[in-house]
Amino acid sequence: MKKSKKDLSQEEDSQVQVEGTTRRGFLSTMGKIAAAAGLLGSGVGMEALSGCAKEPTTSSKSRISAAAAKMMVPPGKWDKYYGLWSGGPTGELRILGLPSMRELLRIPVFNTNTGIGYGPTGDSHSAKMLEEAGGYGLGDVHHPHFSFTKGDFDGRYAYAHDKANGRIARIRLDYFMTDAITSIPNVPAIHGLYPQRYPKTGYVFGASEFETPMPNDGRDIVPTGNNAAQTKNYWTLITAVDGETMRVKWQVIVDGNQDNMDTDYKGLYCMATCYNSSKGWNVPTMTKPPVMWAVFVNIRRVEAAVKAGKYKTIGDSTVPVLDGRHGSDLTTYIPVEKDPHGISCTPDGKYAVANGKLAPKVTVIDLEKVGDVFEGRAKPKDAVAAILTVGVGPLHTVYDGRGNGYTTLFVDSQMVKWNIEEAVKAYKGDKKIKPIKQKLDVQYQPGHAAATQENTIHPTGEWLVSLNKFSKDRFLPVGPRFPENDQLIDISGEKMILAYDNPVYIEPHQADIALVDRLKYIKQIFNPKYFANHVESGTENVKRVGPHKVIVRLTGVAPILTPVYFHCKEGDLITIIYSNNDTVENLSHGFLMTLHNVNLNINPGETKEVTFLADRAGVHWYYCTIFCHALHLEMRGRMIVERVPGYKSRPIHSNRLKGEPSWNELFKDFPVVGKA
Amino acid sequence: MKKSKKDLSQEEDSQVQVEGTTRRGFLSTMGKIAAAAGLLGSGVGMEALSGCAKEPTTSSKSRISAAAAKMMVPPGKWDKYYGLWSGGPTGELRILGLPSMRELLRIPVFNTNTGIGYGPTGDSHSAKMLEEAGGYGLGDVHHPHFSFTKGDFDGRYAYAHDKANGRIARIRLDYFMTDAITSIPNVPAIHGLYPQRYPKTGYVFGASEFETPMPNDGRDIVPTGNNAAQTKNYWTLITAVDGETMRVKWQVIVDGNQDNMDTDYKGLYCMATCYNSSKGWNVPTMTKPPVMWAVFVNIRRVEAAVKAGKYKTIGDSTVPVLDGRHGSDLTTYIPVEKDPHGISCTPDGKYAVANGKLAPKVTVIDLEKVGDVFEGRAKPKDAVAAILTVGVGPLHTVYDGRGNGYTTLFVDSQMVKWNIEEAVKAYKGDKKIKPIKQKLDVQYQPGHAAATQENTIHPTGEWLVSLNKFSKDRFLPVGPRFPENDQLIDISGEKMILAYDNPVYIEPHQADIALVDRLKYIKQIFNPKYFANHVESGTENVKRVGPHKVIVRLTGVAPILTPVYFHCKEGDLITIIYSNNDTVENLSHGFLMTLHNVNLNINPGETKEVTFLADRAGVHWYYCTIFCHALHLEMRGRMIVERVPGYKSRPIHSNRLKGEPSWNELFKDFPVVGKA
Repeated sequence: MKKSKKDLSQEEDSQVQVEGTTRRGFLSTMGKIAAAAGLLGSGVGMEALSGCAKEPTTSSKSRISAAAAKMMVPPGKWDKYYGLWSGGPTGELRILGLPSMRELLRIPVFNTNTGIGYGPTGDSHSAKMLEEAGGYGLGDVHHPHFSFTKGDFDGRYAYAHDKANGRIARIRLDYFMTDAITSIPNVPAIHGLYPQRYPKTGYVFGASEFETPMPNDGRDIVPTGNNAAQTKNYWTLITAVDGETMRVKWQVIVDGNQDNMDTDYKGLYCMATCYNSSKGWNVPTMTKPPVMWAVFVNIRRVEAAVKAGKYKTIGDSTVPVLDGRHGSDLTTYIPVEKDPHGISCTPDGKYAVANGKLAPKVTVIDLEKVGDVFEGRAKPKDAVAAILTVGVGPLHTVYDGRGNGYTTLFVDSQMVKWNIEEAVKAYKGDKKIKPIKQKLDVQYQPGHAAATQENTIHPTGEWLVSLNKFSKDRFLPVGPRFPENDQLIDISGEKMILAYDNPVYIEPHQADIALVDRLKYIKQIFNPKYFANHVESGTENVKRVGPHKVIVRLTGVAPILTPVYFHCKEGDLITIIYSNNDTVENLSHGFLMTLHNVNLNINPGETKEVTFLADRAGVHWYYCTIFCHALHLEMRGRMIVERVPGYKSRPIHSNRLKGEPSWNELFKDFPVVGKA
Repeated sequence: MKKSKKDLSQEEDSQVQVEGTTRRGFLSTMGKIAAAAGLLGSGVGMEALSGCAKEPTTSSKSRISAAAAKMMVPPGKWDKYYGLWSGGPTGELRILGLPSMRELLRIPVFNTNTGIGYGPTGDSHSAKMLEEAGGYGLGDVHHPHFSFTKGDFDGRYAYAHDKANGRIARIRLDYFMTDAITSIPNVPAIHGLYPQRYPKTGYVFGASEFETPMPNDGRDIVPTGNNAAQTKNYWTLITAVDGETMRVKWQVIVDGNQDNMDTDYKGLYCMATCYNSSKGWNVPTMTKPPVMWAVFVNIRRVEAAVKAGKYKTIGDSTVPVLDGRHGSDLTTYIPVEKDPHGISCTPDGKYAVANGKLAPKVTVIDLEKVGDVFEGRAKPKDAVAAILTVGVGPLHTVYDGRGNGYTTLFVDSQMVKWNIEEAVKAYKGDKKIKPIKQKLDVQYQPGHAAATQENTIHPTGEWLVSLNKFSKDRFLPVGPRFPENDQLIDISGEKMILAYDNPVYIEPHQADIALVDRLKYIKQIFNPKYFANHVESGTENVKRVGPHKVIVRLTGVAPILTPVYFHCKEGDLITIIYSNNDTVENLSHGFLMTLHNVNLNINPGETKEVTFLADRAGVHWYYCTIFCHALHLEMRGRMIVERVPGYKSRPIHSNRLKGEPSWNELFKDFPVVGKA
């Protein structure tokens, strides 16, 4: 820490600055320069005032720019865009407001969230859904996407995949809650995910990354032989899930390791990059194949083949699997530059751009030509419209709707802006054209990028976010686990201008950014009538429904919780049914039973249910966990558990009886803090 | 949503504005006004330029103020303060940077965090710590605090309590990780928590909120009688934990329900408010007691009594419990205004201020007089130095070090600034004095407040955060669960000026804000020698150490994972020991075993360990979950699990075989999104 800790003198000037002046000077200078230059009314040139535009690289020279001022949303004002962010192995999604970059919500998907009562210690519906989706306690979300209608976000759903356990989930965008999780058969890990863009979603496609034997039940494993290199009979699949029924419709076996996915704007294809075409099994063998490709799956042909029964199934699975390996007419393999990572279609629907990762190049694929390849009118290589050298480590390309691509360069730590049609012309031989427009340093090592509405037919070309994997020296130190750094970049003008560094927690990969009006079905209160178990105020009761089964029907109307006590006996299975009968937006209640591992979050109009064992005699308080009223603390009650002779109560652990701590042994041999 | 959704025309002007002008006009105007008024160099009056200063109340009139510009930290610059935020029932703590309000880190404490590998699906040390702390899957953190030396933050530890299960945890501030959790005996719920300020921490005090029988094992419960009102033999305790050994030292039985806590600046007392002195059991009986108090515990007298053996133990617990109820010389009960909530000592050490909640008043207690009460030289009521009417629903008071208190008014949705000594003088009868200086509307219903260094001997009086429980119309809608709203207020001048609205996730109660240099022990890389199980590069191996036990010692050096495969058999218990041998800051690795519910986060120099069952034959890939290198995706390997005749593999659930979803039944009867 000491070496990397910055000169604390920066504290004194950690205020608004531009061009080396103080905050106050800034405000003065900005006005004078602006007035003098006559720029303010002209609609151009605000960027020219930015220190960032001139000296974007080092932190010591960063200044509050006009772009930074523009991204601030004043108190009480709303953001212009919704951002949908992934949460990596936290298993969650996040909703951000842009341009302010403020996190508005975490949506638990493949994880447990004790705050909102999602998962095993929460409401029974979410716990059951997770259990039936395989019972996994974690997930790894990389590529969430909004659903589409006619090439634009339609505000119905978001989809997310779990790379850890091969699952695809759906989130309703009326309530911002996970409503279904599909476990994908025959694959261990779904990595790339993309929804069908046209006519609508429709299909949600998932690419499995890790090749395995099929079926993967150990039948091929030789007990004593060398299995290490035996990957030639391992395969990966591209899976199509119906975004409305959430059932798997079909799977296509493809060659190589899949990585990222995309779909076109006509509903003809889904496509995936392949970074390991020879199915290597360590870094040297994975990175030295002779040829790489992007595979295109012809949706209509697959549908016809399924209809005609031209498929097989694998092992016990009942899902139709088709053969899309080289030679199949269901797929075509377009050669692209080495170890491609991201692939994304241009908003005009003409091209797909694959990013080289290990080659400093992007490959522009002509989608009309891909059709010709499928029809036998062209060779796969003829579909390559351009190969452009952009810099080292290109991973993902996004768009502004004005003909430009913005490609992240992981190794160079840059964002490169280039013109698509100019790249095509240059590739055709026009040597006068310089398709590269600007390179902007980012801090540091960008993975994905996201731009406002960029992956729709209505890109707005306003803001670009560089999702940087390393933050290094950009933020106050917080120990060995650094935040990542989402940098907001103004792309509304000729030049990219860095506006803001936003630290983010583990581990966002990708984001969609939608204009606010695209999310048009949002509800803030539940309709009580949709809950079959709704408890009307005045009908609360406690009922013994079996020798060891008690149902408690409660209501909350701030600050009154009814009932405020109930009796039961050791060994009773207690079912809590709790209706929040407040009818005001934002007035949620919690229900936490002390020492019993249960917490619910019940929103206005909502009813939630949980069942647990009353396994310790005594008085146990339950209380509201969401501050709801001046008398919120008083919103509590008692579960009075009578002793049952012979019943073995849950023991109180010895640490607690003695008042001794449990230690994280990780620190057992570490110096005491401050004594090192 | 429809009714509350704001006029979308606001989108068009969701940019920097002041005084009704556009962003560009703002920049120009600011310069001109400033220059004309000659204010910029004068060190005063920036606030006068703020729209907020004049019209702070309604969102429609909010504008980017000078305060807002001041809170922005330019890209690459560091914040000036660390904020320690609680996470309510998420069970986590958060580290923020201020004034930017950016979240820098989540620290898992009483929860599972699959991103960082904390808890049951993560590393064995954290899993074991949580298991031995009671095995609870959730916690409810309200009042985290930094440790103190001589009345200021010393950067060693943070402490947090769990109201759900009566626990107190410690977080090391070198690595920002939870290192111990103590389960407190004899109480179900710790609510108020405060560390000893002087000479240092020292003790960490916890107040239990929920009164119960003691021991609470059901012996007092009458099977058929009316237990509802039998709370007169219920009690609560104040607990003292040794902040260094994390052992419970003693407990003191007190009267009534405890709420919030504080400690003085001389190391003499801890104190807690009591909001339910008659031990009521529903809202009417809890809110109608004749008298309320703050209880002060005399630390030296308790220590002497413990030393003299003047204590008892409760039930099986071995912890010394002393009687501090009315009449004891260990405690004194100072009368305060009705249903007091927060209590906090002024930075000059002279007073403690208790906030009335149900009375519109704060009670100022003279701490020297409290000493007189203990010595029998004064009556409890003589310690009251002032009672000041501040507004409806006062909950917490914080300080600026210039003699002012800032009190949150939950019901009025305001922050009120008042002068402490003037309140004392007014209470003594000086009717000309008006101690109330300003009331600022906040949005909405503030609970705690936090100010920069306010709870130390070195308050800086720069920034104040109002931790508002409701955000209502302040942010884009995200469904029924709203974010809360932490509002940043500039208090450096005469007037409070609203600078920023920061949405926050469930459910921060309280925050400490420390100058950056107070956290002086931060480390960003682990010293490998502290890990007894460290795996040196070159010594990686796979060893069968029992008939069903295999130890795999791995290393990661980006992008190479060694070994990239290992063999085992169905039914083997696999122990992974993983050393991250990268020596560069910010270069963390993950280790996730697909389909086996395991993910670790291993930081530079760190070694982590996890054990799991290989219960399904086949090829299972493990991979790095932290993007670490251009070849991050290639950083993966295989666990090759051989079949064992007769072994019953973990079955693949039928949903997965059929490619069918698991549903959240909550939505079973809900209209399809977009069809309602």
